[in-house]
Amino acid sequence: MTDRLTPTLIALDWGTSSLRAYLLGEAGRVLATQSRPWGIQHTPDGDFARAYEELVGDWYRQWPGLPALACGMIGSRQGWHEVPYALCPANVSDLVEGLLALDTACGTLHMVPGVLEASALPNVIRGEETQVFGALQLAPELRDNALLVLPGTHSKWVTVRDGAIDHFTTHMTGELFAVLRDHSILGRPAREQGSERSDEAFFRGLDAARQSAAEGVSGRLFSTRSLLLTERLTAGESLDYLSGLLIGEELRSVLASIKEDECPPLVLIGDAHLCERYRLALTRFGVASVRTLENAGVAGLWYLACAAALVIATPTPVSRSALHV
Amino acid sequence: MTDRLTPTLIALDWGTSSLRAYLLGEAGRVLATQSRPWGIQHTPDGDFARAYEELVGDWYRQWPGLPALACGMIGSRQGWHEVPYALCPANVSDLVEGLLALDTACGTLHMVPGVLEASALPNVIRGEETQVFGALQLAPELRDNALLVLPGTHSKWVTVRDGAIDHFTTHMTGELFAVLRDHSILGRPAREQGSERSDEAFFRGLDAARQSAAEGVSGRLFSTRSLLLTERLTAGESLDYLSGLLIGEELRSVLASIKEDECPPLVLIGDAHLCERYRLALTRFGVASVRTLENAGVAGLWYLACAAALVIATPTPVSRSALHV
Repeated sequence: MTDRLTPTLIALDWGTSSLRAYLLGEAGRVLATQSRPWGIQHTPDGDFARAYEELVGDWYRQWPGLPALACGMIGSRQGWHEVPYALCPANVSDLVEGLLALDTACGTLHMVPGVLEASALPNVIRGEETQVFGALQLAPELRDNALLVLPGTHSKWVTVRDGAIDHFTTHMTGELFAVLRDHSILGRPAREQGSERSDEAFFRGLDAARQSAAEGVSGRLFSTRSLLLTERLTAGESLDYLSGLLIGEELRSVLASIKEDECPPLVLIGDAHLCERYRLALTRFGVASVRTLENAGVAGLWYLACAAALVIATPTPVSRSALHV
Repeated sequence: MTDRLTPTLIALDWGTSSLRAYLLGEAGRVLATQSRPWGIQHTPDGDFARAYEELVGDWYRQWPGLPALACGMIGSRQGWHEVPYALCPANVSDLVEGLLALDTACGTLHMVPGVLEASALPNVIRGEETQVFGALQLAPELRDNALLVLPGTHSKWVTVRDGAIDHFTTHMTGELFAVLRDHSILGRPAREQGSERSDEAFFRGLDAARQSAAEGVSGRLFSTRSLLLTERLTAGESLDYLSGLLIGEELRSVLASIKEDECPPLVLIGDAHLCERYRLALTRFGVASVRTLENAGVAGLWYLACAAALVIATPTPVSRSALHV
């Protein structure tokens, strides 16, 4: 007999730069969380087993036999153990069938496979697939047809059809911004003189990208410097302008691939600050009705654990607060 | 009375990363050259005066009173003395009027102004304007209408009309490639396992960019990694593939701005290896009749010196060997 405070699952989101663990109770309720900067590129000594035991050992010893499920880059070739990709179109059953069970000092850890779209220019995700199915759990009306946007270092745009991941693209916008900020001539003024937030500069960058139409920003990136040289942009504003150019190019490119009257419902998933930035940007591109879903990752881990019968399948109640229109 | 071996001009191309000096005789004939890795970012102690004297002092003492002319970033705010930009459309007279005379320990150094296109997204060149007028001197038939391509760290595409620089754009292709190679996940496999030249991979990257059509490469850059993960590209080939994607995006963007039947004669100017790479790339994009002009920089310095009456204006004979169709 369990009550609402009895743990039923250890769930992990173990990515490239961070590691988050959740102790979940009935219906996926979050009872406790822990996080470490131990993404797979920063795990001490690259010792995933020890890191795992350090993080969840106390939980496991207190509740022996608790099932555990992890998603993210921990299942990549550079992670603890490679979990082969599920192929597009991939639904929940495909992910469950692809789960890899790993023996650890704290019982069996089940690892979620990433998804591979084996097209001429292939695409891969690891971790985002779990967020996607969490989002479909939080907002089931998206299952038929939706375009889910997961902004980040490598932004993913995931097309869902009939409850499956049908297609997705990767835009390296976050990484492009970081390398240009830290290593190019465009970032130098802000590196030397500092930066300040400027929504206006961000919008100017977005507009320059939007107006580039089919040309794209290739011939406009340098305006981050030339506007500074002609004293129409300050060093402090320059990074937000550059961010606008790059996020704008991502939106321009994606929207160029969609016929105007065929854009499926658009939903943003992920870090609240970044989602708000993308929501603002989409509005600037004339796409106004964009929803944001929070906590899709935990919801997805819970949902997959239920589908895999690691826990007793109790439906996740849709949290109204998690859903913003 | 001068003969063909009597020096008449000291000409300098003093850019961001290198410094080249030419001792020119009658008709711009190159009598001697010197070069140092003393671009304005690498001039020892940032002491331009001393670097200049060290480089050309012997020439000046041997032939006192020899006029001197320099183009490039040495005339920028970060250089020896800022030379205000000439405005687009800029012809030779505009550049001559904008020359700045600087007193040095080796006589007066005349410095060529850069050119500013003061459009909504402004553009600037410093050094390339001299190459452009050198090219028009080497191939006068280009004066009416031509599109000159100067590939490099910051590629410039310069539209010439009626003997003037009418318009130009900047594509940061070389710098983008360098920061992605050295600092992004796309460059990591080659950083760890080394790289080998692969024209085939270069063409594959070009084709991926060309086929992206109006979307551009934003959603395709990541294929440099995903093709590797799926073992359809090797670490060794990955940099040439990335180079193809980036140069391809530059070409795609420029060609999207030109109506198909209105493309002016295209001419490549600059480093022979890089020009050949762009010529191959343009061919892949269906632009076959592209000429390459060598030594446009020296020709331009000589031409401007003549126009400014720093030397006796003798026409530069068009060197047949400098002109490849």
